[in-house]
Amino acid sequence: MTDSLADNMLSDTVKARLSPALSDDERFMLMALNEAKKGEFTTRPNPAVGCVIIKDNLIIGKGFHPKAGYPHAEIFALNDVKNSGQDTKGATAYVTLEPCSHFGRTPPCASALIKSGVARVVIATLDPNPQVAGKGVAMLLNAGIAVAVGVCEREAKELNKGFLKAMATGLPYVRLKMGISLDGRIAMQNGQSKWITGELSRRDVQNLRAKSGAIITGSNTIIADNPALTVRLPDVELDNIGTTAIPQPKIVVVDRRGKLSPDDDFTVLKNPDTLIWQDDLPALLKILVAKYQCHDVLVETGATLTASFLSQNLVDELIIYQAPCLLGATARPMFGGQFERLQDKLNFTLVDVERLGDDVKMIFLPKNLSTA
Amino acid sequence: MTDSLADNMLSDTVKARLSPALSDDERFMLMALNEAKKGEFTTRPNPAVGCVIIKDNLIIGKGFHPKAGYPHAEIFALNDVKNSGQDTKGATAYVTLEPCSHFGRTPPCASALIKSGVARVVIATLDPNPQVAGKGVAMLLNAGIAVAVGVCEREAKELNKGFLKAMATGLPYVRLKMGISLDGRIAMQNGQSKWITGELSRRDVQNLRAKSGAIITGSNTIIADNPALTVRLPDVELDNIGTTAIPQPKIVVVDRRGKLSPDDDFTVLKNPDTLIWQDDLPALLKILVAKYQCHDVLVETGATLTASFLSQNLVDELIIYQAPCLLGATARPMFGGQFERLQDKLNFTLVDVERLGDDVKMIFLPKNLSTA
Repeated sequence: MTDSLADNMLSDTVKARLSPALSDDERFMLMALNEAKKGEFTTRPNPAVGCVIIKDNLIIGKGFHPKAGYPHAEIFALNDVKNSGQDTKGATAYVTLEPCSHFGRTPPCASALIKSGVARVVIATLDPNPQVAGKGVAMLLNAGIAVAVGVCEREAKELNKGFLKAMATGLPYVRLKMGISLDGRIAMQNGQSKWITGELSRRDVQNLRAKSGAIITGSNTIIADNPALTVRLPDVELDNIGTTAIPQPKIVVVDRRGKLSPDDDFTVLKNPDTLIWQDDLPALLKILVAKYQCHDVLVETGATLTASFLSQNLVDELIIYQAPCLLGATARPMFGGQFERLQDKLNFTLVDVERLGDDVKMIFLPKNLSTA
Repeated sequence: MTDSLADNMLSDTVKARLSPALSDDERFMLMALNEAKKGEFTTRPNPAVGCVIIKDNLIIGKGFHPKAGYPHAEIFALNDVKNSGQDTKGATAYVTLEPCSHFGRTPPCASALIKSGVARVVIATLDPNPQVAGKGVAMLLNAGIAVAVGVCEREAKELNKGFLKAMATGLPYVRLKMGISLDGRIAMQNGQSKWITGELSRRDVQNLRAKSGAIITGSNTIIADNPALTVRLPDVELDNIGTTAIPQPKIVVVDRRGKLSPDDDFTVLKNPDTLIWQDDLPALLKILVAKYQCHDVLVETGATLTASFLSQNLVDELIIYQAPCLLGATARPMFGGQFERLQDKLNFTLVDVERLGDDVKMIFLPKNLSTA
């Protein structure tokens, strides 16, 4: 593999961080991560995992997990080697998540790797389940295979934030997304809000939805806008299983005051899977993981419910699409919280800012609230 | 001059735009522009102008206009050649603004260039006064000197926006600057606003003030915050005239309802040059140019006066420093305008977005208002 080939497969952020001291292990792991990303929108509730198999510095096989019910990444990669008539003996496997050690629908991937004769396995990050973490590694080590853990761990964790948080804590990774004007407004007083942000922002929101197991909104938003909250992306073409539709996220409408009735003619209510929720929000988040296996949750709602999520410290990431316009002092605010003193304000850390056409996309992490 | 030397003198923006096809003329003009920038905070009401003199691809002299009352850039550059014992005969002079053709406190620079024996003069942009534009060029051409005009013109105009606009229209270049929260608020309901934005943003505002001939604020801001609105930057060290203080901008307080009295104990009222203004805003802007020679005006004020400036289409550039915090729905809005319909919103074009620590700085140009 040439340098320029590997370079083309890295995001600019990764290049900036790792360049110029990218080791071979890092290069190959980033390729495995690129494999993993192919399943980003289709594997849930499973994590996105990728694997590449290298021998004499050449890729002899690669694979990724495409969808629940299909084999894991390691199996696709090992089969890829076989199918091309090559031999895994003495090779190195790069896997973005610790190979499984338990019998599920298939024998454990750790056994498959042992059986394949690979000499070394490089793992980006351990299994997030503390009960299981390290067991796959132990199986490999007991079989005499060399194992390295933690290569590109940050990137690997980034890819499966929701899965990793849910496995570790029972709570989903919550992204709260808003499209706002420069003066922090989301709609006119009369409710008009289509469209404040531009085409590129709206397309980006489609990606956010596509990687979310559930979308939470509020009854006010449903009544005002009657949104469909669907993923409107084309089917994806996966090179190991063919054309696959992106699954639609589960819709949850928080309706604390019982404003909605099942007979109402709103789009989301026609979907029998839509959940109307009247209870408290932490309980909702727990149920979304425990009962519905929704590990990534997107909140798209108005000022009041946004304030509830933020003030209860239930948001992991705040994603803002800011349009270059002023809606004025009577337009609806993005955030309904009320503070008297400046020191009571909610603070965030800016982690990313990016121009999307004439809009600015910003990603923030909540800062000053203690973890609930 | 080596490529890397020239490269180091260019801003990243310029590099991105011009790279890789930067001609020699562009390289040398960018060096002249870097000379000009040295006087950016001290030349007003004069424009910032720079000059480099090149012979056999080597710099044999350079200079800039440091301050009103001192010689123009061309004279400093020609003297620089003389002082180093070199000869201007057959050289090329790069000047960021058309050399003057009139007798002021000194003989015209066009005459000085002719007398020097330079073979060629490259000019970034013509004199903005339509009565005078082209006369310097004509003098040079009549003397048999080769002349090129328009090299790096965009960058040259950028540097003297206020001067150029004032000469052409009689109106100043108006920048409106605000420090806001993510939800578009500038202060708590009780007026508390120190500090919403971070250290880097506040330092950047000092540069904005330093290049402004006047700062306009409102009586409400004076009463609420009692700001000094001064430039608090150290004296600059200019290599041609030594240590020079940055002049303080003229302070203008718009007080339409006569809330202020000269006896009030506010910092800006202790300055005898402070102007209290009760009349209309376009008239104020005209007077700032005609009577006070303030070509760059910075507006730093609250929601009401901001709305007046924007709705009357008096703002050339909106500069936002946005802090990563939410102040809440009862905090004071940045913009007091009120619209009923979404299509009435004020629209802008985003020209620049930049991260300043945890803040985001954005520069916008007003979009949908017709020019007044």
